[in-house]
Amino acid sequence: MSTPLRLGIAGLGTVGAGVIKIVRKQASLLQHRCGREITISAVSARSRDKDRGVNISAYAWEDDPVALATRDDVDVFVELMGGSDGPAKAATEAALAAGKHVVTANKAMLATHGQLLAGLAEQTGCALRYEAAVAGGIPVVKSLGEGLAGNEITRVMGVMNGSCNYILTRMESAGLTYEEVFDEANALGFLEADPELDVGGIDAAHKLAILSALAFGTRVDFDGVEIEGIGRVKIEDIRHAADMGYRIKLLGVAQMTGRGLEQRMAPCLVPALSPIGQLEGGTNMVVIEGSDVGQIVLRGAGAGEGPTASAVMGDVCDIARGLRLPVFGQPAETLATAPRTQSATPAPYYLRMALHDKPGALAKIATVLGEAGISINRMRQYGHADDEAPVLIVTHKTTRAALNQALEAMEGTGVVTAAPVALRIESV
Amino acid sequence: MSTPLRLGIAGLGTVGAGVIKIVRKQASLLQHRCGREITISAVSARSRDKDRGVNISAYAWEDDPVALATRDDVDVFVELMGGSDGPAKAATEAALAAGKHVVTANKAMLATHGQLLAGLAEQTGCALRYEAAVAGGIPVVKSLGEGLAGNEITRVMGVMNGSCNYILTRMESAGLTYEEVFDEANALGFLEADPELDVGGIDAAHKLAILSALAFGTRVDFDGVEIEGIGRVKIEDIRHAADMGYRIKLLGVAQMTGRGLEQRMAPCLVPALSPIGQLEGGTNMVVIEGSDVGQIVLRGAGAGEGPTASAVMGDVCDIARGLRLPVFGQPAETLATAPRTQSATPAPYYLRMALHDKPGALAKIATVLGEAGISINRMRQYGHADDEAPVLIVTHKTTRAALNQALEAMEGTGVVTAAPVALRIESV
Ligand SMILES: NC(=O)c1ccc[n+]([C@@H]2O[C@H](COP(=O)([O-])OP(=O)(O)OC[C@H]3O[C@@H](n4cnc5c(N)ncnc54)[C@H](OP(=O)(O)O)[C@@H]3O)[C@@H](O)[C@H]2O)c1
Ligand SMILES: NC(=O)c1ccc[n+]([C@@H]2O[C@H](COP(=O)([O-])OP(=O)(O)OC[C@H]3O[C@@H](n4cnc5c(N)ncnc54)[C@H](OP(=O)(O)O)[C@@H]3O)[C@@H](O)[C@H]2O)c1
Repeated sequence: MSTPLRLGIAGLGTVGAGVIKIVRKQASLLQHRCGREITISAVSARSRDKDRGVNISAYAWEDDPVALATRDDVDVFVELMGGSDGPAKAATEAALAAGKHVVTANKAMLATHGQLLAGLAEQTGCALRYEAAVAGGIPVVKSLGEGLAGNEITRVMGVMNGSCNYILTRMESAGLTYEEVFDEANALGFLEADPELDVGGIDAAHKLAILSALAFGTRVDFDGVEIEGIGRVKIEDIRHAADMGYRIKLLGVAQMTGRGLEQRMAPCLVPALSPIGQLEGGTNMVVIEGSDVGQIVLRGAGAGEGPTASAVMGDVCDIARGLRLPVFGQPAETLATAPRTQSATPAPYYLRMALHDKPGALAKIATVLGEAGISINRMRQYGHADDEAPVLIVTHKTTRAALNQALEAMEGTGVVTAAPVALRIESV
Repeated sequence: MSTPLRLGIAGLGTVGAGVIKIVRKQASLLQHRCGREITISAVSARSRDKDRGVNISAYAWEDDPVALATRDDVDVFVELMGGSDGPAKAATEAALAAGKHVVTANKAMLATHGQLLAGLAEQTGCALRYEAAVAGGIPVVKSLGEGLAGNEITRVMGVMNGSCNYILTRMESAGLTYEEVFDEANALGFLEADPELDVGGIDAAHKLAILSALAFGTRVDFDGVEIEGIGRVKIEDIRHAADMGYRIKLLGVAQMTGRGLEQRMAPCLVPALSPIGQLEGGTNMVVIEGSDVGQIVLRGAGAGEGPTASAVMGDVCDIARGLRLPVFGQPAETLATAPRTQSATPAPYYLRMALHDKPGALAKIATVLGEAGISINRMRQYGHADDEAPVLIVTHKTTRAALNQALEAMEGTGVVTAAPVALRIESV
């Protein structure tokens, strides 16, 4: 009989409490599957006395996560505090330096310090696993890094922030404005303490940057992700999109092109009947395209106690069973630095703007687009009561650079009342 | 630098040729990801001279797969011949006995001899991997056995025979009969040499039996799968189902109940708008439900050269990276023998029958159902020209046992012209 695998868990919030529950209730199942017992030696959080819905009296307590991470009776440091820096990073570094394996759900930390931490882990021969950091319960890190390891990956796409998808689908189904649904979601506790992490697209971009590294063998490059949040999407956009057979999703796309790596996270129009278009509420979906496997679609809960703890435990089981892999699929020092391309892949775009109601205004816009080499697929001006004429344009395929040039020139014409909204139409 | 991992490949058909292509074209990617070279030492097939679209002159040739499997220069025996017994089984046994790892795509062999082979592999400490045997390119064995290892699995469902799904969706879209589409699919080479393996549900049932073992920690019990093929599904059934918001799919369901393990593979009605209901053509889908993760849906190509070879290579990479797991998720000798339950979980059923056009015929059927304790949700009799009155009934929830009793009693009434068609309505 092998020795038990002993965990030290820092962070006893939603995910931490979920992990403790699974370790307890599935003890015999885990032992069967891993060939050894999984135990908890010690835990840490900010306040020792908080009721967490699980009894932690059997575990040693540490006030300091760094002290927890380096305890002699801890084999695996489980980091569930969050935050890109501070105690999460300090304790993870300390654990790896002390030869402890690490399991984390912390996408912010990995997106920011992934290269550093991977290097550390590989130097000391430790596992650093992070299935829970991307798309919650969906085993996407495992699928991409292991199951599809025989493929050259060409594109990875995902709806990976449940809160944003909840907001967008709820606006549509209830006919509410962005602001109304935002307040509702916030009151329900669906949004991070800093909601901009969710609605600003940052959380989802963290996840995309991690998947990119794994997919393309490149260094994690969070700063290379073009990020646009969902704050400018109006209920009208959702309706116009629906009229044309599309839905609006906060979609992440990472794609290796001849010119470099393209990573973008932005609200996009996707075909309403595609798997991504049909995604409702808080559910996540990741689409992986590989040279040989074609398209693989994975779908499941992207957050919440059970699903996230399930992903953490998958990693713990892998470690218990002896799996040791390079953190991003190949040794950290061999990860390439890919040149960044700024949405260079052409696509049609959806444009919404309001024009001052003056003769020739629409013609000016059409001219500006033409001068930027952008041809118009459809254009529609809506009836209106006040001085502002709402206009909706769908372009043929164009590059983001050409579009940006046109958007800038539009401002110069003096006929648009505010910066137009431009949403990419993505073929998924 | 580690030593290369040397493959011996038996079977150079669709999948074998695909594997050779990936080993060649992705050589440097594989080396980066696995930390060692993947090479091919020797190959085997029936005829040495056949043009297989890949040049095999660099590899040693063996006429006998058993000789191949035990060669000194082979670390991993890759079995891609097929067939539950014969050379596939002999060579797999020989490989394991000689301490070679095995990767196979052979669901027939695993469904029949899984317990034996798992025991052998675990005795000699070898890996026996079979991702390609279930749902082609979809990493379902890995997701279930590793990523979701922290969950008690409650139900696994899947559309896992692309040919059947192709036939059913094509009948619907083209308005063709089963026989017409069957002939078409056969001519296109979509069906196995013995088509009954596909349309009889046997191939899909092999896959389900394998997934069950992995999901529930039970011995592979192929004989415990209730199997019904798609041969009795008529275009009318597809149309009636569509009218009620359903589609017909050859669906496998494995479910652990308080009474035992329920495994069934049969054409079912599923909600048209569910992920399974929307599945078109040859695509496969597997749905996994776990205690903590909730529902995970995986979708992708279930067959074909690229996707199947991708799955084989995922297994090869795992072995190259040192992964050694029990074959069915826990040691073979600890796998339980679950009692079989025969579709005990109640469900509504769709019944189609034809009655002799005599007064009181319908009343007799209704009485028989009532006597079996089955209540009727909808009943419809169609206009007709001849002596046979087509009747369609949707029941409320009932057990299969009660239904079988009613179906038997119906025969006794003398009013049904032939055995009724009964399809389960599955909530997915
Ligand atoms: N929640 C999800 O659905 C989900 C999904 C995927 C990934 N994640 C990731 O999982 C991690 C944890 O998320 P969560 O939702 O569980 O967060 P949470 O509920 O806010 O819990 C955070 C925990 O960390 C502890 N903590 C915070 N700062 C600390 C410090 N300086 N020293 C010691 N302990 C500290 C807190 O202690 P107190 O309880 O004493 O305040 C709390 O127990 C984050 O990285 C998050 O991004 C979460
Ligand atoms: N095709 C798919 O999409 C797919 C998907 C999932 C799983 N699988 C599984 O993968 C396996 C292979 O399928 P496949 O489609 O590649 O089959 P295939 O195209 O019919 O090829 C079978 C190969 O095995 C060789 N072979 C047969 N009997 C042999 C014997 N007695 N000794 C030596 N070689 C022998 C054949 O040799 P010759 O070429 O000389 O006749 C042929 O090269 C099967 O278990 C199948 O169920 C296939």
